[in-house]
Parts: sequence; C-alpha cells; structure tokens
Amino acid sequence: MRSTVGWQVEGPSPTLRRTRLERRDLRPDDLAVRVDYCGVCHTDLHAVGARHGEAGSAGRPLVPGHEFTGVVTETGPAVTRFTAGDPVAVGNIVDSCGECAMCRAGQENFCHAFPTLTYDGVDRHDGSTTLGGYSREYVVREAFAYPLPAGLDPAAAAPLLCAGITVWEPLHALGVGKGTRVAVAGLGGLGHLAVKIAVALGADTTVVSRSSDKADNARRLGAHGFVVSTAPEQLADARDSFDVVIDTVSAPHDLGPYLRLVAMDGTLSHLGHLGPVTVETTDLLVGRKHLSSAGSGGRPATTAMLDFCAEHGITADIELLPSARVNEALDRLRRNDVRHRFVLDLSDLD
Amino acid sequence: MRSTVGWQVEGPSPTLRRTRLERRDLRPDDLAVRVDYCGVCHTDLHAVGARHGEAGSAGRPLVPGHEFTGVVTETGPAVTRFTAGDPVAVGNIVDSCGECAMCRAGQENFCHAFPTLTYDGVDRHDGSTTLGGYSREYVVREAFAYPLPAGLDPAAAAPLLCAGITVWEPLHALGVGKGTRVAVAGLGGLGHLAVKIAVALGADTTVVSRSSDKADNARRLGAHGFVVSTAPEQLADARDSFDVVIDTVSAPHDLGPYLRLVAMDGTLSHLGHLGPVTVETTDLLVGRKHLSSAGSGGRPATTAMLDFCAEHGITADIELLPSARVNEALDRLRRNDVRHRFVLDLSDLD
Repeated sequence: MRSTVGWQVEGPSPTLRRTRLERRDLRPDDLAVRVDYCGVCHTDLHAVGARHGEAGSAGRPLVPGHEFTGVVTETGPAVTRFTAGDPVAVGNIVDSCGECAMCRAGQENFCHAFPTLTYDGVDRHDGSTTLGGYSREYVVREAFAYPLPAGLDPAAAAPLLCAGITVWEPLHALGVGKGTRVAVAGLGGLGHLAVKIAVALGADTTVVSRSSDKADNARRLGAHGFVVSTAPEQLADARDSFDVVIDTVSAPHDLGPYLRLVAMDGTLSHLGHLGPVTVETTDLLVGRKHLSSAGSGGRPATTAMLDFCAEHGITADIELLPSARVNEALDRLRRNDVRHRFVLDLSDLD
Repeated sequence: MRSTVGWQVEGPSPTLRRTRLERRDLRPDDLAVRVDYCGVCHTDLHAVGARHGEAGSAGRPLVPGHEFTGVVTETGPAVTRFTAGDPVAVGNIVDSCGECAMCRAGQENFCHAFPTLTYDGVDRHDGSTTLGGYSREYVVREAFAYPLPAGLDPAAAAPLLCAGITVWEPLHALGVGKGTRVAVAGLGGLGHLAVKIAVALGADTTVVSRSSDKADNARRLGAHGFVVSTAPEQLADARDSFDVVIDTVSAPHDLGPYLRLVAMDGTLSHLGHLGPVTVETTDLLVGRKHLSSAGSGGRPATTAMLDFCAEHGITADIELLPSARVNEALDRLRRNDVRHRFVLDLSDLD
C-alpha cells in the first residue's frame, strides 16, 4: 500500500482531522495523482452531516472531495494517455461497470450497476471504501482521469469537475445555444458556472435570485437579465419566458414559481438536490412544461466540458484556502457564505 | 332564452336527474347544436363526486359532458363557417380571452385568463354557469366548434374531443413519429386512443398494464408490445427503452416504475390527473429523463387531431347507451367497467 495524508471524519464529531491514509498499490491501468487543489462541494457537507448523525459509523472512514486537480506522479504499466508530470483532473466518479447500455453510451454516471463514487464508494476490485480528494494523493483508473487543458488555472478549474459538469449536462442535453432564453436560479457554486457557460454558449441569460443584492455580481458574470424571485411583479413579468430554467437552489423549495417562468414546451432542470420533489400537475400541464434533473456527467461530456471551458477561459470564481482550514470552509458553506466555491490547497499536507 | 332537456345533479344526491334547462339566445357568433352523442369522461365522475360532497352546492347547477357531437340547428348572423345541418363537434373548452400569448399561439387551453370550460365554467359575457353536453341542445361560440370530418361515426368520434385531444397533444408535442418507441400505461378511454394514434403515427407502440388479461385487446388495437407492470422481470427487461411513456392511469400512483421505463433523454407524460405528483429526483436524474403532463389542447391541435383521425379511420371503441342510463354509465366507469368509453345517445330526450 501507499501512504498519504488527508482530512477525515472520525467517530461522532463532524470535525475533519488530519490523518494518515493508505492508497492502493497501482494496478496496471492506475495513475497516482498528487492532489494540488480540491473543491468543496455541497455534497461534502451532506456527507459529513450524514456521517455525523449515523449510528455506528465509527469504523467507516470518510474523506470527502470529488472535484480535484493535480499532477500525475506515477503510472501503471498499461496506462497510455498519461505520463508522470501531466496535469490531471478527477471528478465525482472513478469507475463503472463498463458493460451496461449507459456505460457503452458514455454515460458512466448512469451505470446500471452504479458508478464507483470518488469517495464513500465501494471499489469494484477490492471492496474497499473510496477516500476522496481532501488528501495529498489519489490513485485512480486512467479511464476516469482527464488531462487538464492548458490555460486553465488548476485551482479555479477544480470545481469544473463536479459543479461544472453538473451544469454543463443539462445545458448541453437541452440544446442551449445562440439565442436560447436561459434563467439560472441561485448564484452559488453551480449557479455562477451555469451563468458563465450559458453566456459562452450564446444564450440570453438571466439570473433569478431572492434579492437584488446579487444583480451586480450577475452582470459581472455576463448575465443579461436579473429577476428578483421575491418580487411578485417581477415574477409575473417573467412568466412563460425561458426555454430553460436551471434551478441550482440546494435547499428544498417549491418548484412552482420556477416552473411558471418556463416558456411553452420548455424545461425546468433541477440540480443538486437528491430526494423526492413534488410538483403541481397544473404547473407542468399549462404550457406543456417539462421537469428534469441533472447531476454529474459521463466521460465524453466531461472531456467536452473541459475543452469548452478552456476555449472560453471559464473557471470557477473561488476562495482558495490552505487545506488546514477545511472545517472553516465547510462551516461557511453551510451558511452560504462563499463566493462562489471554496477550493482547498493541499500543498500544506506535505 | 331557449329551452332544452338534460341530465343534472341536483341537491345532495349524486344521481343525475332529467331536468328542463335554459340555453342563452344566440349571440351573433353562436351556434345552436343539437347534441346527438356525448362521451362520459373521468372528469364528469370527479365533478359529480365533488359536487356531491360540497356543502351548500344546491344552488349551483351541474350538467356534465364535454366531448360531444351533433348537428348545427341554427346560427347567429356573424357565423361564417357553419350552416344549419352541418355535423359539428365540441370539446372541453368553449371560450378564452383571445388576447393573451397562449391564445394568440393557438393554445386557448392554456389561456392566461383561464379558458371557459364547457360545463361548470363561467360564461365570459353573462357570468352564468356553463351547462354541459349531457343535454339535447348546446349553444356555443362558432370559434370553439369543430366541423366533424366526413367518414367519422359521430357516436364513436365524440370521445375524440376530450380523450383524443388529450393524448394527441403530448404525442404531437413530443414529436412521436415513425419508429419512436412509445409505451402507453393503462388501456381505458385515454389509453386505447393513445395506442391507436401512436400506431397510426408510425410509432413502435407497447401497452403497459397491470395484468396480462389485456394483451389480446392491446394487440387488436395495433400495439406491437405488451409489458405486465406487476411482473418485476418484465419491468426490468423494459427499463430505459421508451422515448415516450404516456401514463393514462387515473388513480394516484407511484410514477417511479414508469419513469424507469423511459429511455435516455425521453419523457414520461402524465395525463388526466390534476393535483400534486411526487417523484424521486434520482428517477429523473439517471438517464436525464423528463416529466411532463398534458390535458386538452388548443383549437389548431384539435382540428389537426380530427383531420388525422378521419384520415386514419380512428374513433373510440365505445359502449353506446341511451342517455337515460347515464347513472349506470357513471357507476360502471367508477368501477373501471367499460370498454373503452361510454357514449350517451341523447335522442331519448326528445
């Protein structure tokens, strides 16, 4: 086994502690990656919270982190696309069955046998629990590592691997392009990237936010319009006027007001919340509207998204913190106090 | 006022009674229609049930019926498309504002000011409660009456005006055509017309039903495949395999099993149930699936549906009863004991 250092939840405390971790010896198609930067995703917060409340979880380690960039340090003998020294990026899945219809279609995120998650997943070969990117080294199958395109800042690019692909998937699948009327609800980690990507795709892009405080920021990100969702007259004016509404609001909420913004035959794509959602049939029926959901993406889409972001100079707006401040980052994320994504610098673990 | 006879809910009893009714004198753009045949829709059942349970409803008359055919008997002076003696059909809306974006787009069913329903609606001019097609005469604006195409049996065509347009809308809006993989869940009034229309559109059409009893009937309607929804292995085999799933099951039910039948980027269109629906985000997310809902349609779509049905010889499979047996029809519909739609013959009211 290989040895590294990371930030782990241990026992009943939700506080992450610096811990020595083991990584597997390289399999033939594995890379060893020195993790330089890892984004802090809402999922990490949920995972830490869930583990904290879970009885008898002391024995199962949790190291969060599933959007990271770094440098290849070593390669297995069957690796063909990477050599030591290459910049590399890893997202929220690190393996899949490779055989089902979804895997064959390049949608490994929908693998019928369930994809192996980057952390808190189960390795398909040795049954071990995967440990995430809040650590200085990660060992990953070559097939689930992406060359980091030149020109992208590796710290600000890290969130592309989860937040970026999560917003790219619906924008791409719904055919967003020149002139498409897109609204983005919420301006957090997902929302601000949805605005940047929608604008770069040529969409007429509007931000929907609870208060007008974020209007300047929305404009700075390239948005053309701004709707205050707590102002009934603004909502009424915007009714039925967007081909695509991307809802990035992470807390449970009523989808009705967002569905009413969708134009005839358009789609509300609801991101980042897992669990049941309830909609009034009438809100779908009137205007023949569609509800969809998105999260993560397959390997081809991830590659396409990275290429697109490199071409258009898109990265996340980040607050970069030494990894020793990970607990502060999680606390502030819990209070939505971040613009727009925390990224941990793991070099302090050396 | 004009005088006619119809079947009305009166007082606290859910039993419809034969009653003398008034119809308005013709406005310039009105037609008087001799109602010959009126379909019995699930909505009628809901309306009768709701009125029955409603306190203080004695004063508000309820005459159901919103899919009927007949003959024009008289026309107002501004009527241009009909003359006395013309066969005519009327559906579930009889007026709309005519000015909003939806009306201008020919989607009067989505009128922002709410369309005037054929029964239990409020007339836009005199504020009266509209009385439906379970009666021998109806007075309707020319704009919301449709010439009944030659070659369609007027009794079997009546259900096209509600059930037919309700299934036509999603099939048409979702681009169903040659080779589209369509599944239809439920084989009632809506479902059997969805199968006939999907088959005529060239779709590869499968019926999903709770038991294998309906397999012969499904084949007779033209379906190519049959899936028993209570057989887990059949559901598993059919997973992710339909571009469009039309869910016509009227009782509240779990949408999860139907969503899992939808192929990548496909749509579950849920018909005929108004109220809240709950879905698991994961069922939408995995496979980027869409949920939509449909009911009724605008004037252009209704005309197109009638032309299509005339061209392909499509009408409903009906049980024709004299209108005096309306209460028996409602009782049997309540127990799902109908193949596939009751139609009342109103000639017994003369």
